[in-house]
Amino acid sequence: MTNNRRAELLKPGERLDDLQIGGLELIQNPAGFCFGVDAVFLSDFVKVKPGETVLDMGTGNGIIPILLSAKTQGEKFTGLEIQPDTADMARRSVVYNHLEEKIEIVTGDIKEAAEIFRPAFFDVITTNPPYMLSEHGMRNPDDAKAIARHEVLCTLDDILRESMRLLQDKGRFYMIHRPFRLTEIMIKMNYYKIEPKRIRFIHPYIDKEPVLVLIEGVRGARPRVTVEPPIIIYGGEGSRQKD
Amino acid sequence: MTNNRRAELLKPGERLDDLQIGGLELIQNPAGFCFGVDAVFLSDFVKVKPGETVLDMGTGNGIIPILLSAKTQGEKFTGLEIQPDTADMARRSVVYNHLEEKIEIVTGDIKEAAEIFRPAFFDVITTNPPYMLSEHGMRNPDDAKAIARHEVLCTLDDILRESMRLLQDKGRFYMIHRPFRLTEIMIKMNYYKIEPKRIRFIHPYIDKEPVLVLIEGVRGARPRVTVEPPIIIYGGEGSRQKD
Repeated sequence: MTNNRRAELLKPGERLDDLQIGGLELIQNPAGFCFGVDAVFLSDFVKVKPGETVLDMGTGNGIIPILLSAKTQGEKFTGLEIQPDTADMARRSVVYNHLEEKIEIVTGDIKEAAEIFRPAFFDVITTNPPYMLSEHGMRNPDDAKAIARHEVLCTLDDILRESMRLLQDKGRFYMIHRPFRLTEIMIKMNYYKIEPKRIRFIHPYIDKEPVLVLIEGVRGARPRVTVEPPIIIYGGEGSRQKD
Repeated sequence: MTNNRRAELLKPGERLDDLQIGGLELIQNPAGFCFGVDAVFLSDFVKVKPGETVLDMGTGNGIIPILLSAKTQGEKFTGLEIQPDTADMARRSVVYNHLEEKIEIVTGDIKEAAEIFRPAFFDVITTNPPYMLSEHGMRNPDDAKAIARHEVLCTLDDILRESMRLLQDKGRFYMIHRPFRLTEIMIKMNYYKIEPKRIRFIHPYIDKEPVLVLIEGVRGARPRVTVEPPIIIYGGEGSRQKD
């Protein structure tokens, strides 16, 4: 881009990162929470059909809707983000990539999502939520990184309750999380009528415990879950690479 | 063994199968339900400390307590089996292997297990339960194979409810089951206060879905589960074999 455009869209301390797909770039602030492999794994796991509408809960810098706009033929992507500065940064990435027609960033609270949007409106909801409980090893609850990593501003219950209200019947919910919370995740998804249908674990190596888990739930579906072959990040010969 | 002893312990149609450990052999009837890899995987997954007491719910031909008596230093193993002919066959295998001091086979109903045994008595409970719901594709509900495979005579709820009553505080519960029922299993284990603590999936190949899942629960434990590296039955070079 031209230096003028860069000056217009980037604030002090921010940088542009190449997303390695469709020529997309993302504005990030290295002092804040930057996207990681989690967002990339989640966007690979999500299935969006042509014409579908997608909501990303807690979109941060907008990485998930921006990746999904390139990887799928979804019609409309909405990112909900509570932190005004982060939402503003996401909005500038949308503008920079000329995606204003496809992606809208809404500043708002996940806990009130069903009042911000129309109930049963979305075909797909995605989320890369805080993994850690709020009381665990947290230093600064006001910090943007803490908000992204710990359940300071919203809990798993908040996300699932609002998703239940916002998903159409048989709408799909996609989440990446930590395996140690799997029991709670499955119990709460079932409770909020977003039945787990597909699970995939991500292991660093084939002989190591998974560090992440991908889950697809379907609103109002009957209980029966498929555990998929594992994703092995550093797969040796003969083992399966991420597909 | 001598032909006399064989004649004494084997009934018509039965055979003796070598268990490939400690010189143990098991009486089975090829017309009924014979043990499979499931029992072997489960007995490898179970941890029994020296001196502990173990109950196997629905022990069938007694394969689990017989294997655990060789693989662990547990003090006393009890197998509970509802079908009198099957329990009798298991009892004869115990006698044949000279394990009467360590293993007792009790004829009785899992649904009433907490009345048969002393509450909070066992350190460990194991079970290789029927995997299929009773209504699914069942032909003959009286058949011994159907009883072993379908929830005809007991359900997952029955097993967990009675295990909750029979396990000591922090006692361990080990089960092998089918992954497609994982949500229900985790919800019900949590409900019956047998918290899932360790899960391991068994895949035929690294790039195939798991066909079985091993689960350890702990009575009265706090929720936090560890998903272990997968077991790959037919592992290629560089992948992990069953350990």
